[in-house]
Amino acid sequence: MNEKLSREVFRFSAPPSIKSFASVVGKKEADGPLGKYFDVCDEDSYFGEDTWEKAESRLQKLAVRTALSKARLDASDIDFMFAGDLVNQCTSSTYGLRELNIPLFGIYGACSTMAEGLLLSAMAVNAGYAGLSLNVTSSHFSTAERQFRFPLSYGGQRTPSSQWTCTASGAVVLSAEGTAPCILGGAVGTVTDFGITDANNMGAAMAPAAASVITKYLCVTKTKPTDYDAIVTGDLGEVGSGLLYDLLMREGTDIREVHRDCGVMIFDGETQDTHAGGSGCGCSASVLCGYFLKKLCDGEMKNILFAATGALMSPMIVEQGETIPSISHLVHISSEKNRTES
Amino acid sequence: MNEKLSREVFRFSAPPSIKSFASVVGKKEADGPLGKYFDVCDEDSYFGEDTWEKAESRLQKLAVRTALSKARLDASDIDFMFAGDLVNQCTSSTYGLRELNIPLFGIYGACSTMAEGLLLSAMAVNAGYAGLSLNVTSSHFSTAERQFRFPLSYGGQRTPSSQWTCTASGAVVLSAEGTAPCILGGAVGTVTDFGITDANNMGAAMAPAAASVITKYLCVTKTKPTDYDAIVTGDLGEVGSGLLYDLLMREGTDIREVHRDCGVMIFDGETQDTHAGGSGCGCSASVLCGYFLKKLCDGEMKNILFAATGALMSPMIVEQGETIPSISHLVHISSEKNRTES
Repeated sequence: MNEKLSREVFRFSAPPSIKSFASVVGKKEADGPLGKYFDVCDEDSYFGEDTWEKAESRLQKLAVRTALSKARLDASDIDFMFAGDLVNQCTSSTYGLRELNIPLFGIYGACSTMAEGLLLSAMAVNAGYAGLSLNVTSSHFSTAERQFRFPLSYGGQRTPSSQWTCTASGAVVLSAEGTAPCILGGAVGTVTDFGITDANNMGAAMAPAAASVITKYLCVTKTKPTDYDAIVTGDLGEVGSGLLYDLLMREGTDIREVHRDCGVMIFDGETQDTHAGGSGCGCSASVLCGYFLKKLCDGEMKNILFAATGALMSPMIVEQGETIPSISHLVHISSEKNRTES
Repeated sequence: MNEKLSREVFRFSAPPSIKSFASVVGKKEADGPLGKYFDVCDEDSYFGEDTWEKAESRLQKLAVRTALSKARLDASDIDFMFAGDLVNQCTSSTYGLRELNIPLFGIYGACSTMAEGLLLSAMAVNAGYAGLSLNVTSSHFSTAERQFRFPLSYGGQRTPSSQWTCTASGAVVLSAEGTAPCILGGAVGTVTDFGITDANNMGAAMAPAAASVITKYLCVTKTKPTDYDAIVTGDLGEVGSGLLYDLLMREGTDIREVHRDCGVMIFDGETQDTHAGGSGCGCSASVLCGYFLKKLCDGEMKNILFAATGALMSPMIVEQGETIPSISHLVHISSEKNRTES
């Protein structure tokens, strides 16, 4: 049912089809360069709720409902789902999704969650465990800032390397049957730690994880960067993207021509005061579901590698003197169902 | 490669073998009724570290190292692992396991983590994605109490329904090849919420999730409780176990004869002042790896259902007036590799 190319790299023999996908964002994301691509925008940062955590739960549920309705599916059609988010105890997922009554595998990969979920979901569908599997993740500026950095009302100055946590969510339904776009394969990430300790420089913490998983996939599949229309990273931002280029150049790999970073794409740093770019699980999830999957459906792109990156930062243990490890999982998404790599 | 019996219940056609397993506990757990079964006990609650979070990271790594060394395996032999824990951002797993360099799927299922990980791990091995897959989880009394309830130095009174978070960890290595015990099948849990709001009554919050997944598995596989030597729940404790019996009796199912709860088993409530029992991801993980897997290896037991239960409690959102949802995943572990259910 699948081809195992190395310890952590797979190619699927029955590539799961992307049956539906949806993106939901807040006002700032809708005002950015990708605004027209997103399915739903709610200008109310509370999404009709009275706390930010409840707002993010509502946001995530809205992404799932939108993905289901676009494919005329009911929640009961989904075999099971993979979901997680940044709020402690993955609150947005467990509270946001409970009324759907879909069996749930909770996952935690920080901002790599969309790639981790897509990989697990594709593994499950390819192997026949699910006919339809869903994955979803989200982030919210206000839940993340107070949990990981400062209370918003503190009004702290943001450093040049800091990123802006997106209020956004993305959801994808994979199907055992159907046409392209589909998930051809992927790679499981390994925790990587280059000794970064600055909670306002997540891009630097995550770049080594992205470099590692991209190098592994290219090497094992014997492909080169220009075989892809885009090699997409999650939320390295301007600072992390530059470090990624440096790290890959040391291995003799130049991805600059095809590299796109969701964190760089989602905001206009010059006019939106977002410093190094966007971040959060919802950043890469909404840009994948809003922009890249539409480009794959339209035929404007044929093959992308999607490597969402997660900083596995615990504010408590960083205060105890620890560094910030990171992880990045990768999936290969194609508009050609039967493509075989060279 | 597998038989899908219903939306969320599987039976594996190539049941993954349990190649190795290990349990590590703290002093209080070693002093309890199951003390002699655990592989390693460290009487130092800091496990040689200077903070509790680092201690739990060390504890989890020790469980993995012990499981690997019992089977004469190196970390590099493992294809990938599933790990998670209770500390915010799954700190014990990501920090504890990073130096092992094993590709990681981070999961979050609160105290259901060992069952969730075993199910995902078995799905991956059965489908050929991994030859050897590992899963591990942990909990620590001191990290959990301060994160979910009160600072220890506050000296708060504990209610009769409260449980004692175990300082414990369990790790299991699954293999595509080998003999019994093995994982015959399992069921994915669904988030369940019966409206409990008391953070000191986790057993009551979790009982409906356990009842749901046990009922589904028995029903779909057309088996009855006495077909198993034990139906094991994670950490319902005395209060939650009683509620589980009531809920199942309403469905006409009486599991009392074969029910064992890890939270009830691990401490002697009369002499150890643990109130309703033990809890935490490490409770069911260590009792599975310390007690039940040994009984299956020795031939004293032939078939068990292991349904670890997780209260998906977010202290922040409970303070915002929310209830406590829960989830329970189930795996069927057998000492007979080719057993077919009636």
